[in-house]
Amino acid sequence: MNGAESLVRTLVVNGVEVCFTNPGTSEMHFVAALDRVPGMRCILGMFEGVVTGAADGYYRMAGKPACTLLHLGPGLGNGLANLHNAKKAGSGIVNIVGEHATYHLKYDAPLTADIEGIARPVSHWVKTAANARTLAGDCAAAIRAAGVAPGQIATLIAPADTAWGEAQSPVEAEPALPRRKVSADAVAEAARALTSGEPAMLMLGGAALRGRALENAGRIAARTGCRLMAEYNNSRMECGAGRVRIDRLPYVVDNALAAMKGTRRLVLAGAKPPVTFFAYPGKPSVIVPEECAATTLAGVADDLDGALDALAAELGATRTPPAPIAELKRPALPAGAVTHDGIAAVLAALLPENAVVADESITSGRNLGASMASAAPHDWMQIRGGSIGWALPAAAGAAIAAPGRKIVALEGDGSGMYTLQALWTMARADLDVTVVLFANRSYQILHGELKNMGAGTPGQRAQDMLTLDRPFLDWTALARGQGVEAGRAETLEAFAAELKRAFSRRGPYLVELII
Amino acid sequence: MNGAESLVRTLVVNGVEVCFTNPGTSEMHFVAALDRVPGMRCILGMFEGVVTGAADGYYRMAGKPACTLLHLGPGLGNGLANLHNAKKAGSGIVNIVGEHATYHLKYDAPLTADIEGIARPVSHWVKTAANARTLAGDCAAAIRAAGVAPGQIATLIAPADTAWGEAQSPVEAEPALPRRKVSADAVAEAARALTSGEPAMLMLGGAALRGRALENAGRIAARTGCRLMAEYNNSRMECGAGRVRIDRLPYVVDNALAAMKGTRRLVLAGAKPPVTFFAYPGKPSVIVPEECAATTLAGVADDLDGALDALAAELGATRTPPAPIAELKRPALPAGAVTHDGIAAVLAALLPENAVVADESITSGRNLGASMASAAPHDWMQIRGGSIGWALPAAAGAAIAAPGRKIVALEGDGSGMYTLQALWTMARADLDVTVVLFANRSYQILHGELKNMGAGTPGQRAQDMLTLDRPFLDWTALARGQGVEAGRAETLEAFAAELKRAFSRRGPYLVELII
Repeated sequence: MNGAESLVRTLVVNGVEVCFTNPGTSEMHFVAALDRVPGMRCILGMFEGVVTGAADGYYRMAGKPACTLLHLGPGLGNGLANLHNAKKAGSGIVNIVGEHATYHLKYDAPLTADIEGIARPVSHWVKTAANARTLAGDCAAAIRAAGVAPGQIATLIAPADTAWGEAQSPVEAEPALPRRKVSADAVAEAARALTSGEPAMLMLGGAALRGRALENAGRIAARTGCRLMAEYNNSRMECGAGRVRIDRLPYVVDNALAAMKGTRRLVLAGAKPPVTFFAYPGKPSVIVPEECAATTLAGVADDLDGALDALAAELGATRTPPAPIAELKRPALPAGAVTHDGIAAVLAALLPENAVVADESITSGRNLGASMASAAPHDWMQIRGGSIGWALPAAAGAAIAAPGRKIVALEGDGSGMYTLQALWTMARADLDVTVVLFANRSYQILHGELKNMGAGTPGQRAQDMLTLDRPFLDWTALARGQGVEAGRAETLEAFAAELKRAFSRRGPYLVELII
Repeated sequence: MNGAESLVRTLVVNGVEVCFTNPGTSEMHFVAALDRVPGMRCILGMFEGVVTGAADGYYRMAGKPACTLLHLGPGLGNGLANLHNAKKAGSGIVNIVGEHATYHLKYDAPLTADIEGIARPVSHWVKTAANARTLAGDCAAAIRAAGVAPGQIATLIAPADTAWGEAQSPVEAEPALPRRKVSADAVAEAARALTSGEPAMLMLGGAALRGRALENAGRIAARTGCRLMAEYNNSRMECGAGRVRIDRLPYVVDNALAAMKGTRRLVLAGAKPPVTFFAYPGKPSVIVPEECAATTLAGVADDLDGALDALAAELGATRTPPAPIAELKRPALPAGAVTHDGIAAVLAALLPENAVVADESITSGRNLGASMASAAPHDWMQIRGGSIGWALPAAAGAAIAAPGRKIVALEGDGSGMYTLQALWTMARADLDVTVVLFANRSYQILHGELKNMGAGTPGQRAQDMLTLDRPFLDWTALARGQGVEAGRAETLEAFAAELKRAFSRRGPYLVELII
């Protein structure tokens, strides 16, 4: 077999079974090998931001890496922003990046670029394969690197002659390192903080927002009276009726400070000490109150399940019923003008059981918290790295990872335009994704940010940098132009009708909600 | 004034008068400063690939840099592919990239990234500003770096506190270094090569494809009988009736080898020794025949006008009438099924005088050469770095740089999808761009490449990675959804009718040509 086939077989043997790709000439032998080797599902994206964002969404739901196949430095470059988001989310991805044949590099052909240099800022692991014989071993190392908890970006650069040269068998990856167990001291210190008698908060992140860890957090809260909180954006949190209810720290600095106010003991489990998204003149960067002592029970890469088991045991809460548990409230469907609260009510009322929500709703979704808690149980994923253009690709990837579940992408118009090509992938692969496109015809967040920055009142030229009017986008046309059915809503009752329509069918559908 | 204002004033004082941008929170003080300082035209792109590609197109037509204003590492990352193209084109661009306030970086907020690391592979010059007082000086240095011949990418990273901190006056940039004069020896050697009596070729690139240099190349060809050739892709060539006619080296290796066959003396003026775009098993990387001796008259950064003046003088060709001169032939408009020759004939017949053509037509445009030569005089720009998604943004930038000229973007459907957001910018800024969208519903080039790579006959899975069917894109919907009028043609007569319609009006229009 050639190197390309040894690589694809190595991926499949090690459980990597989805390839998100936009290949080019230098990847043609890999494409041919994907053809010959059974067990790999290939998903084409018309832009690499779709490819890498889908791989992020896939990992969050599948819990194991997909691979990407990208075309040289610029192809990787196009995927950089969503690799940034994936890296911040702790998502594991194996990037296979084609490269010129080793002997061709010295000629500086047009597509020649410093691929390792482009890869490094968004990768935990980078290697350029030396030859066809060692390519499979390099791939196995990349797979292992991608699996390091909570998930890492591994980028393997494969020159074309490593693909077409003669190679040997596929290589089995070394088993993943287990997550680090937390020390008894850390558990004891966390327990002391939560039982000090002072107002305490347990802040959860990463895998602590799901399953047994989340349930234990509820037991601990019930036992100690501590508050539970999540970071503003999270990789994947279990949410909705029947689950332990977790508030998210607000985005706006003053609101975040208010939410933390009075907290004297902060225990971190998978979360970092909270900081503001940006620096604002005259405001603090760190959101932890000055008089609050923080202690880390477990980092995001640690054994969070074990840590919360141990903490619950230490606190004698193993059998304490978790609280607060969110209750199902299907609010009456509101009507009339579109408001943020109205949007939240419609979503909460109609969200299908077991849905997966990819949320990049930015300003339009700021009021979602309370209603998501009372909606049917679901997984809620948010953009972790702050680089917009994530939700549509991530929704596509989640749909591949979680067949049988309804995927709901909550997307702003400004963000959606970054990677709107994801709609075509949804149509091509017939993915069960409902896109709610919040059309406020503006980078709405920036109006607030300009003010918060103390940059003054915007004049016409500044306004023109923040608005998406003149002309308005027609998202139903942008969706239909890519083979995705779509409808528009300008009232809450129309929004509800559109959502019902989307949720009652299988396959992609876009609802443009004019705000 | 604050740092942001000192930076914007420095840009304007030094002749940088267009800012292509997609700003975010960390750039809000720059946005506010753009508002206050007269003399800067701001163009919003809904994706940074539009922003950087427009800056490339602008430079090619304006001959001086625009600036970009980008949002941190991911915003720069989104612009990477078209910065790669711009770098390979020798286009000068001043990137201003926002960054977290210096004191905020240590908190590793979501958007924190290694911006210098992301910038370096696509930049000739990278600097992070240290404080508000030195920001204007850093900007002046960036402007100077961008102006180094033939044009460079200069990336200035500006932390938010350098924008809002107190600063002084704007700074005048040091004058640009003049282009290097070529030596008398190089001129003499080139003259000897062209008069050796052996078959000789003068290969032109960069600024040698325009104006006086191109005319001198014609004189030299007429005097010595040498062939004239351009590289496959060029930054900007003057073409059409009345101009010295230059063939382009073909893309396909065998055709390129055939075009070079028999050449014994190769003189390079602004071009590099030609190499293949990719390596193919069993084919050479270098297209220069083995028995051919190459000599460099001048590099792309050298004084090409002076070099060709000197060579014409050395050869006694100063008054020789240039040849071959292309003649205007407006072919009869063909009808019937769409063919590559038919496309070329329609374009040649209808191309408006003095048009600027941004050509990323890939396979659909391979037959354009002969017809472009006989069309009305125009400028013809091609994608230099091979990273697709260039033509629509470049056309937008060219339209800003060359008001009063009709811009014609020749774009493939696969390439167009990379940066289709450029259509919105065309509508917003009411740019006079006609987009010809070649819809072959395929990455057509890759079918040939798969074969040339010897990767075998593609099966269904490989085919699925190369085709853009299921569903078809509807480009008229994608254009109208962004406020650009559009029409579709499925025959050559319909294509001609649509082109006439587009060319007879001002403002953006998209013609989708089904192939």
